[in-house]
Amino acid sequence: VAGAVGGRVVGDPATRLRGIETLDRAAPEDLSWVADDRHARAASESRAGALLVSAEPVAGGRPAVVVTNPTLAFAIWLDRIRPRPRPRPGVSPRAHVARGARIGKGVSVGPGATIAAGARVGARTIVGPGAHVAEGVEIGEDSWIHANASILAGTRIGARCMIHSGAVIGSDGFGFVWDGLAHRKIPQVGRVRIEDDVEIGANTTIDRATLGETVVGRGARIDNLVQIAHNVVIGENAVVCGLVGIAGSSKIGARATLAGQVGISDHVTIGEGAILTGQAGVPVGGRVPPGAVLSGMPAAPHRNFLRSAAVLARLPDLARRLDRLERRVEEAAAAGKGGEPWSSESRRS
Amino acid sequence: VAGAVGGRVVGDPATRLRGIETLDRAAPEDLSWVADDRHARAASESRAGALLVSAEPVAGGRPAVVVTNPTLAFAIWLDRIRPRPRPRPGVSPRAHVARGARIGKGVSVGPGATIAAGARVGARTIVGPGAHVAEGVEIGEDSWIHANASILAGTRIGARCMIHSGAVIGSDGFGFVWDGLAHRKIPQVGRVRIEDDVEIGANTTIDRATLGETVVGRGARIDNLVQIAHNVVIGENAVVCGLVGIAGSSKIGARATLAGQVGISDHVTIGEGAILTGQAGVPVGGRVPPGAVLSGMPAAPHRNFLRSAAVLARLPDLARRLDRLERRVEEAAAAGKGGEPWSSESRRS
Amino acid sequence: VAGAVGGRVVGDPATRLRGIETLDRAAPEDLSWVADDRHARAASESRAGALLVSAEPVAGGRPAVVVTNPTLAFAIWLDRIRPRPRPRPGVSPRAHVARGARIGKGVSVGPGATIAAGARVGARTIVGPGAHVAEGVEIGEDSWIHANASILAGTRIGARCMIHSGAVIGSDGFGFVWDGLAHRKIPQVGRVRIEDDVEIGANTTIDRATLGETVVGRGARIDNLVQIAHNVVIGENAVVCGLVGIAGSSKIGARATLAGQVGISDHVTIGEGAILTGQAGVPVGGRVPPGAVLSGMPAAPHRNFLRSAAVLARLPDLARRLDRLERRVEEAAAAGKGGEPWSSESRRS
Repeated sequence: VAGAVGGRVVGDPATRLRGIETLDRAAPEDLSWVADDRHARAASESRAGALLVSAEPVAGGRPAVVVTNPTLAFAIWLDRIRPRPRPRPGVSPRAHVARGARIGKGVSVGPGATIAAGARVGARTIVGPGAHVAEGVEIGEDSWIHANASILAGTRIGARCMIHSGAVIGSDGFGFVWDGLAHRKIPQVGRVRIEDDVEIGANTTIDRATLGETVVGRGARIDNLVQIAHNVVIGENAVVCGLVGIAGSSKIGARATLAGQVGISDHVTIGEGAILTGQAGVPVGGRVPPGAVLSGMPAAPHRNFLRSAAVLARLPDLARRLDRLERRVEEAAAAGKGGEPWSSESRRS
Repeated sequence: VAGAVGGRVVGDPATRLRGIETLDRAAPEDLSWVADDRHARAASESRAGALLVSAEPVAGGRPAVVVTNPTLAFAIWLDRIRPRPRPRPGVSPRAHVARGARIGKGVSVGPGATIAAGARVGARTIVGPGAHVAEGVEIGEDSWIHANASILAGTRIGARCMIHSGAVIGSDGFGFVWDGLAHRKIPQVGRVRIEDDVEIGANTTIDRATLGETVVGRGARIDNLVQIAHNVVIGENAVVCGLVGIAGSSKIGARATLAGQVGISDHVTIGEGAILTGQAGVPVGGRVPPGAVLSGMPAAPHRNFLRSAAVLARLPDLARRLDRLERRVEEAAAAGKGGEPWSSESRRS
Repeated sequence: VAGAVGGRVVGDPATRLRGIETLDRAAPEDLSWVADDRHARAASESRAGALLVSAEPVAGGRPAVVVTNPTLAFAIWLDRIRPRPRPRPGVSPRAHVARGARIGKGVSVGPGATIAAGARVGARTIVGPGAHVAEGVEIGEDSWIHANASILAGTRIGARCMIHSGAVIGSDGFGFVWDGLAHRKIPQVGRVRIEDDVEIGANTTIDRATLGETVVGRGARIDNLVQIAHNVVIGENAVVCGLVGIAGSSKIGARATLAGQVGISDHVTIGEGAILTGQAGVPVGGRVPPGAVLSGMPAAPHRNFLRSAAVLARLPDLARRLDRLERRVEEAAAAGKGGEPWSSESRRS
């Protein structure tokens, strides 16, 4: 293990392990990992036979491998001991590959998949059962399009991308203009470009640009059921969680994080590394500075949001106190008119 | 009718009915039902020829069947008079069933469906057109996988489940770790287990566990476009409405209800029978006690939320009043310094 | 250009153009358009060779076509110069069309598509790869069902509709009743009816009615990942943006707009032309008057919402000020008891 993850062994290097499990589920034959020093107590209570830790004391005397980042070591080790099964290369006789489509070496195309004319699929890429690759799509090497995903006309997808089941890449942008009688559709003639090493979640939808490109930058991570509208640009290594909606022409900076159900209106700019917490909303044209952490709708600095939320809970009480205070001051004033100093007695009058 | 739903006839038992309709649409040939005594007025105005009611007076003299739960009686009766059409058993010649897949008696597999090696499909289960059942999936008896749903590798689905169109069960969890240069994917090697009698809505996504299982308990009802992350556990008979997102490792108690667009962060525990109202949000690590009714983001007891919301609407007015009061007290204090009692006159100075 | 879009030429009518681009990306060979007079500055800085404008001065001396609505002119012109490629008519040998399905003249059915018995598909309609058209579905002329969409049993779709990829039309409504031991499913025997000229976004879900119909009115525009529950009625030309959820039996008025992530509870009525801004929520049974503009959850008039949100940000400060004022008044009162006038000195006592 230590060799594979680049760590230092502490304790008996001959310990034999069978599997890998979370701290609370690990048995004496299992390796586990301590993601964070806050889990030190869970680590001490774990039955795990060995641990991946960031510092020797966390292991509490058990055999361990000390690494800079235990979660990273866990990911590397898990990938090694339980590599993902891959379908065999080859085109299923039940798939439909149009003449004029160019399929790289070692590509796997599942039953029911359809690849249209003019599409190019890079070497070793997998197109799952029922997936659709439309006219003029280009997909790089070593990518994986899962079952029933739809990659629509003209989309570009880089190398080593993973597009999960049911995702729709390249649907029309939501653009129309009222002509006095009806909404007239604005043709959506741009495309979607997804750079290398991107992961797109199940049933996520990414609309093509009206003109130009909708872009998902290299290394970005998009979760399930996310809506990305026309002409949006997602920066490199950005993280977009489930059920987030990003409206037209907004820009998400590199390494920014949008937590679950965040809503970004159109023409918004989110700075690099900024964080929007769950359900936060940014109104039309908003600009979030790099590194900011915002919450709520409309989004405000997270600390202010927490403070306001705490006060909000006792708002009815504040309102009552204000009423009372006004009455009291009023009464005092009335009493004062008659020459009386303002006093608690005056409240009885 | 009375025999089928277990009720007591009131009025003419020879009344002949043609259909079943809601109170406002029912004609004299139709049966209708009074879901709730609050609908008594709608019942009295309805043209329905007969009614399912919980008490005789509600029927207002019309022929009726008195039952404990009229909506339940309606469901039973509707199921009887309009049974769902089912596709004929058999594997469509346009479906692809891999050698090594085990298909039970009376199973129906639609055109374009694909069933991979190592999958098992229980007796009388239906796999709709274009649906994909991946390697090693096990599905119980009498379940129904609707058109274009994707049941991914290793998923377990119980008996009498209904998985609606476009649902994706077993997609990768959203797990990765920053390695200093990029997000490295944490392999997602667990699975999804769905117990008996569960219904999963259209285009809902349920991610496989990182290790172990993501679980949907017996009898749970999941609506459309719901996102359920890795290692989530949904309790028995829980109800999860449309567009809800539940982040990693959270636990939803038995019979809890999450209304539309609720957001549950990761490592949250929702107690048995608790209710989150529409758009409520529970932050990371939150614990909702059994039976609680919460609203808002961050979620607070529903009554407090309503009170705060009411005050919130007049918050600008409260702020103005506080300004005024401060000025007034300030002025009074200033006047007081000069020996003047604090009075309304002082406001004019 | 002027002829096609019905405008008046200003400047050199012999200007030759190659393409069409947004103001910031246009080159001297490109036409562009000034959507709004607020973009006048961007127009003056644009390198575009010619412009579609609403008034001559906006063109700043460049060749231009003056039209009433430049965005509309852009849409018309774009449609003309870059018409959407359409698949050739004909049924793919890899499609499955059941005997008993009726297919109009000039229909195109892609590979992997399935059309069940009793379905009718109008002339020139396109059914994309992997799409499913179930039993008894009726689709009008010149409609387009994109790849992997599911049109379920009995659904009616009008003429000139566009249903994007992955959409599910006619899934079961989310209806059940507790029978004391379990949720018993209420059969969903109604259908979905979509009128003419409607566009439905990718991975959107529309549930069939319990009894009767779920309706999307003529000309409505529905974005991606929208959830429309059983028995909802969407008015003509209504606009419903991404990730909106509309619960059972609610009615959305004609030309109303629901912005992204809006949540409409059940039995709500939204008046004609009303606007709900992003993430707004309307509680059960709510009634929004025609033309109203509402925000927040629970939804309140937009202006009030903005004012409350502004005050909310300084709520902790208000709370502190109220505390201080109370103390001050209290102290003054205490001092007053002893005959002292209320003064700033008393604070020190």
